[in-house]
Amino acid sequence: MTAYDDLMAHERQTRALGQIAGRLAWDQETVMPDGAAPQRAEESEALEHVLHARRTDPRVGNWLDEIDETALDEVGRANLRHIRRRFERTSRVPVKLAGEIARVTSSAQRVWAEARAASDFTAFAPVLAKVVALKRDEAAALADGGDTYDALLDDYEPGATGAELQAMFDALRPRLVALRDRVMGAAHQPAPLKGTFDEKAQMKLARALARSFGYDMRHGRLDKAVHPFSSGSGLDVRITTRTNPDDPFNCTYSTIHETGHACYEQNIDPDYLLTPLGEGVSMGVHESQSRLYENQIGRSRAFTGWLFDRYRAAFGDLSAPDAEAFWGAANRVHPGFIRTESDEIQYNLHIMLRFDLERRMIAGDLAMDDLEEAWNSRFAADFGVEVDNPANGVLQDVHWSVGLFGYFPTYALGNVYAGCLMQALARATPDLEARLVRGEVASVTAWLAANVQRPGGLHEPKDLIERACGTPPSEAPLLDYLDAKFAEVYRL
Amino acid sequence: MTAYDDLMAHERQTRALGQIAGRLAWDQETVMPDGAAPQRAEESEALEHVLHARRTDPRVGNWLDEIDETALDEVGRANLRHIRRRFERTSRVPVKLAGEIARVTSSAQRVWAEARAASDFTAFAPVLAKVVALKRDEAAALADGGDTYDALLDDYEPGATGAELQAMFDALRPRLVALRDRVMGAAHQPAPLKGTFDEKAQMKLARALARSFGYDMRHGRLDKAVHPFSSGSGLDVRITTRTNPDDPFNCTYSTIHETGHACYEQNIDPDYLLTPLGEGVSMGVHESQSRLYENQIGRSRAFTGWLFDRYRAAFGDLSAPDAEAFWGAANRVHPGFIRTESDEIQYNLHIMLRFDLERRMIAGDLAMDDLEEAWNSRFAADFGVEVDNPANGVLQDVHWSVGLFGYFPTYALGNVYAGCLMQALARATPDLEARLVRGEVASVTAWLAANVQRPGGLHEPKDLIERACGTPPSEAPLLDYLDAKFAEVYRL
Repeated sequence: MTAYDDLMAHERQTRALGQIAGRLAWDQETVMPDGAAPQRAEESEALEHVLHARRTDPRVGNWLDEIDETALDEVGRANLRHIRRRFERTSRVPVKLAGEIARVTSSAQRVWAEARAASDFTAFAPVLAKVVALKRDEAAALADGGDTYDALLDDYEPGATGAELQAMFDALRPRLVALRDRVMGAAHQPAPLKGTFDEKAQMKLARALARSFGYDMRHGRLDKAVHPFSSGSGLDVRITTRTNPDDPFNCTYSTIHETGHACYEQNIDPDYLLTPLGEGVSMGVHESQSRLYENQIGRSRAFTGWLFDRYRAAFGDLSAPDAEAFWGAANRVHPGFIRTESDEIQYNLHIMLRFDLERRMIAGDLAMDDLEEAWNSRFAADFGVEVDNPANGVLQDVHWSVGLFGYFPTYALGNVYAGCLMQALARATPDLEARLVRGEVASVTAWLAANVQRPGGLHEPKDLIERACGTPPSEAPLLDYLDAKFAEVYRL
Repeated sequence: MTAYDDLMAHERQTRALGQIAGRLAWDQETVMPDGAAPQRAEESEALEHVLHARRTDPRVGNWLDEIDETALDEVGRANLRHIRRRFERTSRVPVKLAGEIARVTSSAQRVWAEARAASDFTAFAPVLAKVVALKRDEAAALADGGDTYDALLDDYEPGATGAELQAMFDALRPRLVALRDRVMGAAHQPAPLKGTFDEKAQMKLARALARSFGYDMRHGRLDKAVHPFSSGSGLDVRITTRTNPDDPFNCTYSTIHETGHACYEQNIDPDYLLTPLGEGVSMGVHESQSRLYENQIGRSRAFTGWLFDRYRAAFGDLSAPDAEAFWGAANRVHPGFIRTESDEIQYNLHIMLRFDLERRMIAGDLAMDDLEEAWNSRFAADFGVEVDNPANGVLQDVHWSVGLFGYFPTYALGNVYAGCLMQALARATPDLEARLVRGEVASVTAWLAANVQRPGGLHEPKDLIERACGTPPSEAPLLDYLDAKFAEVYRL
């Protein structure tokens, strides 16, 4: 065995244990008995402790030093790049701090769920304050004198920086606000879908949709949870969704979104199973898949025409009289509190709000006592509406409760990447629209699988997008797509 | 921190990880996608590797050497006894072997399930041969020159030996066979319950029954699986059951049985959470709880009278015209292939068959090529019926596939202990029958919780039974109970 083989054998076991941690998180959100929470917190902490010890094992450092990189092929070099980055990051965080973060976030997530149900931010604030304090400690350890927010961000989007994202948001913001204002003031306003929609029928349709996009149920499953998510890699990639009797689009588009994440994981080269290349390369690229499936495809005129018939088969007559009205309903730009229910134009404004608040929290410039008010005033300024209760405001997302700071901006980055990829996909598939009209989305997955999904972690995120598109990523395709689409939907 | 504190902190994390392993096993049997099996095998192996390393950590040996036992209280000494026994056992098994057992049994269980579904022993034999070979290696390592079967048995029933169990079976056998023959030849033969029983209604009743016996759903859940089981300790104790439209007793009594296991785990002193005392002390004692709930209580004339009304409410009119006939149906002694569907008299004969075969397998005296034939001829001799297909014979139980050798006899030991405990319980609860007639089984759980369940692993198994009963365990109460009960049921 060479040092490289030893390192990879060690890494493989670590990743197998990491998969177990993911499965535990899935369990906690879907099937775990409520009263098990305190014990689960200890279990998660124990596993996190093991993972941390393995990731910071001095032997990893020795192997990394010993390996002759020039003797490795492209895959070997990519593996090494991932392992080295992880090792250097993880070694900086003390074992005790890593364990405490695991323990506190495990309880915090449950406290958050209860606080959200009761719409009571004060019930959540103390534990969130603990999470923020721990994440600031972690960020300081990781940054080693550099920017603390960038240090956290790097975990989700290697190579990205807060400054770069700020520049991206600065470029997006004026055109998005202008488009939103034109759309809101338009004479033609699509009507929302009204009615009560059987929740079992929603789930049945969700399963059918996931399958039609290529999600493989032999290596996955779809369940209900408070927050839709996708978890796991390789041969066990599970997704969750939620249902709302008044809003079937919530279930449908959450499902299509998570299907995008899950297809990415399922379509990675099976040779990379349980190696650093066997997972999606970054959250931004991950989100580009889910958002492209959800929006560019799922909310397209062509696909919603097909979906309209599925909806009538599932729910009977709809308030939307025809496919055109249904398409409008699926693309309504509307005032609303909830990020995940937002439209494509305002979605990125929701992200900017979170990005700014969490950067301030991590910088220590925003006290917990001021967070709810900061959220509400910023929301009113950006969206022109007063937040009515914290469940619709600062309590709406699970992310901060589980310690995900630096994660939100990757959603916006995913939108930008999705814009780029859609342009390339459309160019490569001249009959795409004809296919979507028939609900044939397999060719979308086929192109994405070949150009984005299959390589897993082989390339760096930006490089991967550039290889797929032929040009470096930019905001322009997304903004052009939104301008064109909403001019049509709103008859501007 | 003293050496004892260090040891207990280490132990607590190990037990938290052990709970995760249990949760993974639950996941595999209930919700895991089929195609995930190969990856899960690697995950389980990785976790087993971690557990083994922790259990054989040389620091444990050092702490054990350092601790001044005389300074400890009863709880401390009991903790130490468990940890020392575990440490000495586990240290004897090479890491590689332990990992391989975990990996092979994980796949073997799936192969077994498929082979059973296809009723094809040849599909299972090669992988079972591997399991047996690995378990023989393990037994040899554990026995260190002593009896290999005893070495495996000790994992499930500390202190028990094959010879002692053989003596117990020798005492049970003649009286059980004589009773069976009298019953089979009786003029009065209770009719079985006939009809088709809605499976959803079976599960609904199963949930209600589990609750009525005191199973706490806030710290557990009930799902369907191929093989009914209980898993987990402390705050997360989950049970499974199965349904058969033709045989609602299967679901009902599997559920009551697993509820007995689960109540035991849930009622252990919460101070013992994630310590060696926080789990049932042995499989025999565990089984005494499940069998007492299932048989002595669940199949009693008093309780079945109450259950009869619940059945009519759940399923409508029954083929049994009255509670007396229903009681007879629940206690029919009938030729049958399946251990878990067997009656109280013949159940122990099923165990004796497995006990003998597995002792020979572990001794190397029974080749895999001869196993199916050995099972079938022994079955014909003991039960007077030819096994019609391997799903009804050698493939019926999951145990061997997951490496459980030495586990079966603890079922019979549990029956013997249940006989002792029932005698004591009846003596302590003069109005027991009046309570059971009203379905009030809470007092049963209360007595068992106080006398058997709450102490967890504080006492040695036999000692625990003796403390609860006031006399050392013996076969006599079980045999007397069976003679008396079946004389009534069969009007002998």
